[in-house]
Amino acid sequence: MPKKSTHITKVAHRMAAEDRWRCQGHRGGVLWFTGLSASGKTTLAFELEKRLFDQGMKVYVLDGDNMRFGLSADLGFSPDDRMEHIRRVGEVAALFADAGILVISAFISPYREDRQRARKVAGENFHEIYLSAPVDVCETRDPKGLYAKARRGELSDFTGVSAPYEEPEHCELIVDTGTLSVEESLNVLTTYVAEKFKL
Amino acid sequence: MPKKSTHITKVAHRMAAEDRWRCQGHRGGVLWFTGLSASGKTTLAFELEKRLFDQGMKVYVLDGDNMRFGLSADLGFSPDDRMEHIRRVGEVAALFADAGILVISAFISPYREDRQRARKVAGENFHEIYLSAPVDVCETRDPKGLYAKARRGELSDFTGVSAPYEEPEHCELIVDTGTLSVEESLNVLTTYVAEKFKL
Repeated sequence: MPKKSTHITKVAHRMAAEDRWRCQGHRGGVLWFTGLSASGKTTLAFELEKRLFDQGMKVYVLDGDNMRFGLSADLGFSPDDRMEHIRRVGEVAALFADAGILVISAFISPYREDRQRARKVAGENFHEIYLSAPVDVCETRDPKGLYAKARRGELSDFTGVSAPYEEPEHCELIVDTGTLSVEESLNVLTTYVAEKFKL
Repeated sequence: MPKKSTHITKVAHRMAAEDRWRCQGHRGGVLWFTGLSASGKTTLAFELEKRLFDQGMKVYVLDGDNMRFGLSADLGFSPDDRMEHIRRVGEVAALFADAGILVISAFISPYREDRQRARKVAGENFHEIYLSAPVDVCETRDPKGLYAKARRGELSDFTGVSAPYEEPEHCELIVDTGTLSVEESLNVLTTYVAEKFKL
Protein backbone atom coordinates (compact mmCIF):
# COMPACT_ATOMS: atom_id res chain seq x y z
CA MET A 1 0.00 0.00 0.00
CA PRO A 2 1.40 3.44 -0.87
CA LYS A 3 2.10 5.66 2.10
CA LYS A 4 -0.10 8.74 1.88
CA SER A 5 1.22 10.63 4.85
CA THR A 6 4.04 13.08 4.42
CA HIS A 7 5.84 15.31 6.89
CA ILE A 8 6.01 12.54 9.45
CA THR A 9 9.04 11.27 11.29
CA LYS A 10 9.64 8.12 13.33
CA VAL A 11 10.01 8.74 17.04
CA ALA A 12 11.75 6.19 19.23
CA HIS A 13 10.76 4.80 22.60
CA ARG A 14 13.20 5.67 25.36
CA MET A 15 13.83 2.03 26.18
CA ALA A 16 14.65 -0.96 23.96
CA ALA A 17 12.36 -3.92 23.41
CA GLU A 18 14.95 -5.99 25.27
CA ASP A 19 14.44 -3.84 28.38
CA ARG A 20 10.77 -4.75 28.36
CA TRP A 21 11.61 -8.43 27.88
CA ARG A 22 14.11 -8.49 30.73
CA CYS A 23 11.51 -7.12 33.13
CA GLN A 24 9.03 -9.85 32.42
CA GLY A 25 11.30 -12.78 31.59
CA HIS A 26 10.13 -13.39 28.05
CA ARG A 27 10.27 -11.95 24.56
CA GLY A 28 7.37 -10.18 22.92
CA GLY A 29 6.21 -11.50 19.60
CA VAL A 30 3.39 -12.85 17.49
CA LEU A 31 1.94 -16.33 17.43
CA TRP A 32 0.01 -16.12 14.19
CA PHE A 33 -2.54 -18.94 14.14
CA THR A 34 -3.90 -19.72 10.70
CA GLY A 35 -6.34 -22.41 9.64
CA LEU A 36 -9.88 -23.14 8.52
CA SER A 37 -12.99 -22.20 10.41
CA ALA A 38 -13.44 -24.80 13.18
CA SER A 39 -9.77 -25.82 13.07
CA GLY A 40 -9.47 -24.75 16.71
CA LYS A 41 -7.94 -21.28 16.43
CA THR A 42 -10.19 -19.45 18.88
CA THR A 43 -10.43 -22.26 21.43
CA LEU A 44 -6.68 -22.83 21.46
CA ALA A 45 -5.87 -19.12 21.46
CA PHE A 46 -7.92 -18.37 24.56
CA GLU A 47 -6.86 -21.54 26.40
CA LEU A 48 -3.23 -20.89 25.58
CA GLU A 49 -3.57 -17.28 26.72
CA LYS A 50 -4.89 -18.49 30.07
CA ARG A 51 -2.11 -21.03 30.52
CA LEU A 52 0.64 -18.56 29.66
CA PHE A 53 -0.97 -15.88 31.83
CA ASP A 54 -0.97 -18.34 34.74
CA GLN A 55 2.77 -18.78 34.11
CA GLY A 56 3.17 -15.02 34.54
CA MET A 57 3.59 -14.14 30.88
CA LYS A 58 2.27 -10.97 29.26
CA VAL A 59 -0.05 -12.34 26.64
CA TYR A 60 -3.10 -11.20 24.70
CA VAL A 61 -5.41 -12.72 22.10
CA LEU A 62 -6.41 -10.87 18.99
CA ASP A 63 -9.36 -12.78 17.67
CA GLY A 64 -11.00 -12.56 14.27
CA ASP A 65 -14.53 -12.39 15.56
CA ASN A 66 -13.71 -9.86 18.29
CA MET A 67 -11.69 -7.55 16.06
CA ARG A 68 -14.52 -7.31 13.59
CA PHE A 69 -16.66 -5.54 16.18
CA GLY A 70 -14.07 -2.79 16.42
CA LEU A 71 -11.12 -2.00 14.21
CA SER A 72 -12.57 -3.81 11.20
CA ALA A 73 -16.23 -2.99 11.78
CA ASP A 74 -16.26 -1.23 8.41
CA LEU A 75 -15.10 -4.35 6.55
CA GLY A 76 -16.93 -7.40 5.23
CA PHE A 77 -15.74 -10.71 3.81
CA SER A 78 -14.92 -9.86 0.20
CA PRO A 79 -11.33 -10.61 -0.87
CA ASP A 80 -10.40 -6.90 -0.68
CA ASP A 81 -11.98 -6.48 2.73
CA ARG A 82 -10.34 -9.62 4.06
CA MET A 83 -6.98 -8.37 2.86
CA GLU A 84 -7.43 -5.00 4.55
CA HIS A 85 -8.71 -6.71 7.70
CA ILE A 86 -5.62 -8.92 7.93
CA ARG A 87 -3.38 -5.96 7.13
CA ARG A 88 -4.80 -4.06 10.11
CA VAL A 89 -4.54 -7.06 12.38
CA GLY A 90 -0.92 -7.51 11.34
CA GLU A 91 -0.17 -3.90 12.20
CA VAL A 92 -1.86 -4.18 15.58
CA ALA A 93 -0.09 -7.46 16.34
CA ALA A 94 3.23 -5.77 15.53
CA LEU A 95 2.44 -2.94 17.96
CA PHE A 96 1.62 -5.42 20.73
CA ALA A 97 4.83 -7.33 20.03
CA ASP A 98 6.76 -4.06 20.15
CA ALA A 99 5.19 -3.41 23.54
CA GLY A 100 6.68 -6.69 24.75
CA ILE A 101 3.44 -8.65 24.68
CA LEU A 102 3.20 -12.16 23.29
CA VAL A 103 0.17 -11.71 21.09
CA ILE A 104 -1.80 -14.69 19.84
CA SER A 105 -3.70 -13.82 16.70
CA ALA A 106 -6.44 -16.22 15.67
CA PHE A 107 -7.57 -15.50 12.13
CA ILE A 108 -8.36 -17.77 9.23
CA SER A 109 -6.04 -15.51 7.17
CA PRO A 110 -6.41 -17.73 4.10
CA TYR A 111 -4.00 -15.93 1.78
CA ARG A 112 -0.23 -16.47 1.87
CA GLU A 113 0.45 -12.96 0.73
CA ASP A 114 -1.51 -11.46 3.63
CA ARG A 115 0.29 -13.62 6.17
CA GLN A 116 3.59 -12.73 4.56
CA ARG A 117 2.79 -9.03 4.96
CA ALA A 118 1.93 -9.52 8.64
CA ARG A 119 5.24 -11.32 9.11
CA LYS A 120 7.15 -8.51 7.46
CA VAL A 121 5.51 -5.87 9.67
CA ALA A 122 6.18 -7.74 12.90
CA GLY A 123 9.78 -8.56 12.04
CA GLU A 124 11.59 -11.27 14.00
CA ASN A 125 9.60 -13.07 16.68
CA PHE A 126 6.75 -13.67 14.24
CA HIS A 127 5.73 -17.33 14.35
CA GLU A 128 3.25 -18.63 11.84
CA ILE A 129 1.42 -21.59 13.34
CA TYR A 130 -0.75 -23.68 11.09
CA LEU A 131 -3.66 -25.39 12.84
CA SER A 132 -3.98 -28.13 10.32
CA ALA A 133 -7.35 -29.86 10.18
CA PRO A 134 -8.87 -31.13 6.94
CA VAL A 135 -11.96 -29.36 5.70
CA ASP A 136 -14.12 -32.47 6.12
CA VAL A 137 -13.16 -32.70 9.80
CA CYS A 138 -13.89 -29.00 10.32
CA GLU A 139 -17.17 -29.38 8.49
CA THR A 140 -18.17 -32.28 10.74
CA ARG A 141 -17.44 -30.16 13.84
CA ASP A 142 -19.06 -26.98 12.50
CA PRO A 143 -19.80 -25.56 15.98
CA LYS A 144 -21.41 -22.41 14.61
CA GLY A 145 -23.24 -24.09 11.74
CA LEU A 146 -21.33 -21.94 9.25
CA TYR A 147 -20.29 -24.74 6.90
CA ALA A 148 -23.90 -25.85 6.65
CA LYS A 149 -24.95 -22.30 5.83
CA ALA A 150 -22.16 -21.96 3.28
CA ARG A 151 -23.19 -25.25 1.61
CA ARG A 152 -26.76 -23.97 1.39
CA GLY A 153 -25.43 -20.83 -0.29
CA GLU A 154 -26.46 -18.59 2.61
CA LEU A 155 -22.85 -17.44 3.18
CA SER A 156 -20.69 -16.31 0.30
CA ASP A 157 -16.89 -16.28 0.18
CA PHE A 158 -16.67 -18.94 2.89
CA THR A 159 -13.14 -20.30 3.24
CA GLY A 160 -12.87 -23.98 2.35
CA VAL A 161 -16.26 -24.00 0.64
CA SER A 162 -16.59 -21.04 -1.70
CA ALA A 163 -13.27 -19.27 -1.08
CA PRO A 164 -9.74 -20.68 -1.14
CA TYR A 165 -7.43 -21.48 1.77
CA GLU A 166 -3.75 -21.32 0.87
CA GLU A 167 -1.83 -23.67 3.17
CA PRO A 168 1.39 -22.30 4.69
CA GLU A 169 4.56 -23.35 2.89
CA HIS A 170 7.17 -22.29 5.44
CA CYS A 171 5.44 -21.89 8.78
CA GLU A 172 7.27 -22.23 12.09
CA LEU A 173 4.95 -24.87 13.55
CA ILE A 174 2.17 -27.18 12.42
CA VAL A 175 -0.32 -28.43 14.99
CA ASP A 176 -2.38 -31.31 13.67
CA THR A 177 -5.66 -30.24 15.21
CA GLY A 178 -7.47 -32.72 12.99
CA THR A 179 -6.28 -35.56 15.20
CA LEU A 180 -4.85 -34.01 18.40
CA SER A 181 -7.16 -33.21 21.28
CA VAL A 182 -7.36 -29.67 22.68
CA GLU A 183 -5.22 -30.77 25.62
CA GLU A 184 -2.61 -32.35 23.36
CA SER A 185 -2.52 -29.31 21.11
CA LEU A 186 -2.06 -27.04 24.12
CA ASN A 187 0.87 -29.11 25.29
CA VAL A 188 2.54 -28.74 21.92
CA LEU A 189 1.97 -25.00 21.99
CA THR A 190 3.12 -24.34 25.55
CA THR A 191 6.29 -26.35 24.96
CA TYR A 192 6.93 -24.34 21.81
CA VAL A 193 6.39 -21.01 23.58
CA ALA A 194 8.67 -21.95 26.46
CA GLU A 195 11.42 -22.81 23.99
CA LYS A 196 11.07 -19.77 21.75
CA PHE A 197 10.02 -16.94 24.05
CA LYS A 198 11.24 -17.48 27.59
CA LEU A 199 14.53 -15.85 28.50
CA MET B 1 -20.06 3.46 11.32
CA PRO B 2 -22.40 0.60 10.37
CA LYS B 3 -21.13 -2.87 11.20
CA LYS B 4 -20.68 -4.80 7.96
CA SER B 5 -19.74 -8.15 9.46
CA THR B 6 -22.41 -10.70 10.20
CA HIS B 7 -22.26 -14.20 11.64
CA ILE B 8 -19.73 -13.13 14.24
CA THR B 9 -19.88 -13.67 17.97
CA LYS B 10 -17.94 -12.16 20.83
CA VAL B 11 -15.55 -14.55 22.52
CA ALA B 12 -14.35 -13.89 26.03
CA HIS B 13 -10.87 -14.06 27.50
CA ARG B 14 -10.55 -16.73 30.18
CA MET B 15 -9.43 -14.20 32.76
CA ALA B 16 -10.84 -10.83 33.80
CA ALA B 17 -9.11 -7.50 33.24
CA GLU B 18 -8.81 -7.30 37.03
CA ASP B 19 -6.69 -10.46 37.06
CA ARG B 20 -4.23 -8.78 34.74
CA TRP B 21 -4.19 -5.67 36.91
CA ARG B 22 -3.58 -7.61 40.11
CA CYS B 23 -0.51 -9.27 38.61
CA GLN B 24 1.14 -6.01 37.72
CA GLY B 25 -0.15 -3.71 40.45
CA HIS B 26 -1.95 -1.21 38.26
CA ARG B 27 -4.99 -0.77 36.06
CA GLY B 28 -4.87 -0.75 32.31
CA GLY B 29 -6.32 2.24 30.55
CA VAL B 30 -5.84 5.08 28.12
CA LEU B 31 -4.12 8.40 28.67
CA TRP B 32 -5.42 10.23 25.63
CA PHE B 33 -3.20 13.26 25.05
CA THR B 34 -4.74 15.92 22.83
CA GLY B 35 -3.36 19.30 21.80
CA LEU B 36 -1.87 21.30 19.00
CA SER B 37 1.24 20.36 17.07
CA ALA B 38 4.25 21.35 19.25
CA SER B 39 2.15 21.35 22.44
CA GLY B 40 4.43 18.64 23.83
CA LYS B 41 2.43 15.47 23.17
CA THR B 42 5.19 13.31 21.74
CA THR B 43 7.93 14.51 24.08
CA LEU B 44 5.79 14.05 27.17
CA ALA B 45 4.37 10.73 26.00
CA PHE B 46 7.78 9.11 25.53
CA GLU B 47 9.29 10.64 28.68
CA LEU B 48 6.26 9.60 30.72
CA GLU B 49 6.45 6.10 29.26
CA LYS B 50 10.09 5.84 30.38
CA ARG B 51 9.31 7.07 33.88
CA LEU B 52 6.38 4.72 34.37
CA PHE B 53 8.34 1.83 32.88
CA ASP B 54 11.10 2.51 35.39
CA GLN B 55 8.45 2.27 38.10
CA GLY B 56 7.60 -1.21 36.80
CA MET B 57 4.38 -0.30 35.03
CA LYS B 58 3.21 -1.88 31.78
CA VAL B 59 3.01 1.10 29.49
CA TYR B 60 3.15 1.82 25.77
CA VAL B 61 3.01 4.92 23.58
CA LEU B 62 0.84 5.11 20.50
CA ASP B 63 2.16 8.08 18.60
CA GLY B 64 0.56 9.89 15.71
CA ASP B 65 3.65 10.01 13.58
CA ASN B 66 4.58 6.39 14.24
CA MET B 67 1.10 5.01 13.63
CA ARG B 68 0.93 6.67 10.26
CA PHE B 69 3.75 4.48 9.00
CA GLY B 70 1.66 1.41 9.74
CA LEU B 71 -2.00 1.07 10.57
CA SER B 72 -2.94 4.39 8.96
CA ALA B 73 -0.44 4.32 6.09
CA ASP B 74 -3.37 4.46 3.67
CA LEU B 75 -4.72 7.70 5.19
CA GLY B 76 -3.84 11.35 4.66
CA PHE B 77 -4.84 14.53 6.49
CA SER B 78 -8.25 15.34 5.04
CA PRO B 79 -11.06 15.59 7.59
CA ASP B 80 -12.41 12.16 6.61
CA ASP B 81 -8.99 10.55 6.80
CA ARG B 82 -8.22 12.16 10.14
CA MET B 83 -11.50 10.86 11.49
CA GLU B 84 -10.78 7.32 10.32
CA HIS B 85 -7.21 7.58 11.63
CA ILE B 86 -8.41 8.55 15.08
CA ARG B 87 -11.12 5.90 14.98
CA ARG B 88 -8.49 3.22 14.38
CA VAL B 89 -6.19 4.59 17.06
CA GLY B 90 -9.09 4.59 19.51
CA GLU B 91 -9.80 0.95 18.74
CA VAL B 92 -6.16 -0.02 19.16
CA ALA B 93 -5.88 1.93 22.40
CA ALA B 94 -8.94 0.08 23.71
CA LEU B 95 -7.34 -3.27 22.87
CA PHE B 96 -4.16 -2.30 24.71
CA ALA B 97 -6.19 -1.16 27.71
CA ASP B 98 -8.09 -4.44 27.64
CA ALA B 99 -4.73 -6.22 27.70
CA GLY B 100 -3.95 -4.39 30.95
CA ILE B 101 -1.53 -1.92 29.43
CA LEU B 102 -1.55 1.76 30.29
CA VAL B 103 -1.45 3.17 26.79
CA ILE B 104 -0.43 6.77 26.19
CA SER B 105 -1.82 8.02 22.91
CA ALA B 106 -0.31 11.19 21.53
CA PHE B 107 -2.45 12.58 18.73
CA ILE B 108 -3.58 16.06 17.88
CA SER B 109 -7.10 14.59 17.61
CA PRO B 110 -8.63 18.01 16.99
CA TYR B 111 -12.30 17.01 16.85
CA ARG B 112 -14.40 16.51 19.97
CA GLU B 113 -16.55 13.92 18.27
CA ASP B 114 -13.54 11.76 17.41
CA ARG B 115 -12.21 11.92 20.95
CA GLN B 116 -15.66 11.10 22.26
CA ARG B 117 -15.77 8.01 20.08
CA ALA B 118 -12.37 6.87 21.37
CA ARG B 119 -13.63 7.35 24.92
CA LYS B 120 -16.73 5.29 24.24
CA VAL B 121 -14.72 2.42 22.76
CA ALA B 122 -12.24 2.27 25.67
CA GLY B 123 -14.91 2.52 28.35
CA GLU B 124 -13.90 3.39 31.89
CA ASN B 125 -10.21 4.11 32.48
CA PHE B 126 -10.13 6.49 29.52
CA HIS B 127 -8.54 9.77 30.57
CA GLU B 128 -8.55 12.69 28.18
CA ILE B 129 -5.57 14.91 28.93
CA TYR B 130 -5.41 18.29 27.27
CA LEU B 131 -1.90 19.61 26.71
CA SER B 132 -2.91 23.20 26.62
CA ALA B 133 -0.52 25.57 24.87
CA PRO B 134 -1.71 28.56 22.84
CA VAL B 135 -1.16 28.41 19.11
CA ASP B 136 1.27 31.37 19.18
CA VAL B 137 3.46 29.54 21.69
CA CYS B 138 3.38 26.36 19.62
CA GLU B 139 4.14 28.37 16.50
CA THR B 140 7.17 29.96 18.17
CA ARG B 141 8.52 26.53 19.12
CA ASP B 142 7.72 24.88 15.76
CA PRO B 143 10.42 22.19 16.14
CA LYS B 144 9.62 20.59 12.81
CA GLY B 145 9.03 23.82 10.91
CA LEU B 146 5.47 22.74 10.17
CA TYR B 147 3.74 25.98 11.20
CA ALA B 148 6.06 27.93 8.91
CA LYS B 149 5.22 25.59 6.06
CA ALA B 150 1.51 25.84 6.82
CA ARG B 151 1.68 29.66 6.87
CA ARG B 152 3.40 29.57 3.48
CA GLY B 153 0.56 27.40 2.21
CA GLU B 154 2.79 24.38 1.69
CA LEU B 155 0.75 22.25 4.11
CA SER B 156 -3.02 22.14 3.86
CA ASP B 157 -5.45 21.23 6.62
CA PHE B 158 -2.90 22.12 9.32
CA THR B 159 -4.49 22.24 12.77
CA GLY B 160 -4.43 25.71 14.33
CA VAL B 161 -3.62 27.38 11.01
CA SER B 162 -5.88 26.08 8.27
CA ALA B 163 -7.89 23.48 10.18
CA PRO B 164 -9.75 23.82 13.48
CA TYR B 165 -8.81 22.56 16.93
CA GLU B 166 -11.79 21.95 19.19
CA GLU B 167 -10.70 22.35 22.80
CA PRO B 168 -11.86 19.67 25.27
CA GLU B 169 -14.91 20.66 27.32
CA HIS B 170 -14.88 17.90 29.92
CA CYS B 171 -11.42 16.38 30.00
CA GLU B 172 -9.98 14.62 33.05
CA LEU B 173 -6.80 16.70 33.23
CA ILE B 174 -5.36 19.88 31.73
CA VAL B 175 -1.60 20.31 31.65
CA ASP B 176 -0.61 23.88 30.88
CA THR B 177 2.31 23.06 28.62
CA GLY B 178 2.37 26.65 27.42
CA THR B 179 3.98 27.70 30.71
CA LEU B 180 5.12 24.50 32.48
CA SER B 181 8.52 22.99 31.69
CA VAL B 182 8.80 19.41 30.49
CA GLU B 183 9.95 18.40 33.97
CA GLU B 184 7.03 20.16 35.65
CA SER B 185 4.55 18.66 33.21
CA LEU B 186 5.96 15.19 33.85
CA ASN B 187 5.55 15.64 37.57
CA VAL B 188 1.89 16.55 37.11
CA LEU B 189 1.39 13.50 34.92
CA THR B 190 3.19 10.94 37.10
CA THR B 191 1.28 12.14 40.16
CA TYR B 192 -1.96 11.81 38.24
CA VAL B 193 -1.12 8.30 37.04
CA ALA B 194 -0.14 7.14 40.54
CA GLU B 195 -3.46 8.36 41.86
CA LYS B 196 -5.67 6.97 39.13
CA PHE B 197 -4.01 3.75 38.03
CA LYS B 198 -1.98 2.19 40.82
CA LEU B 199 -3.70 -0.44 42.92
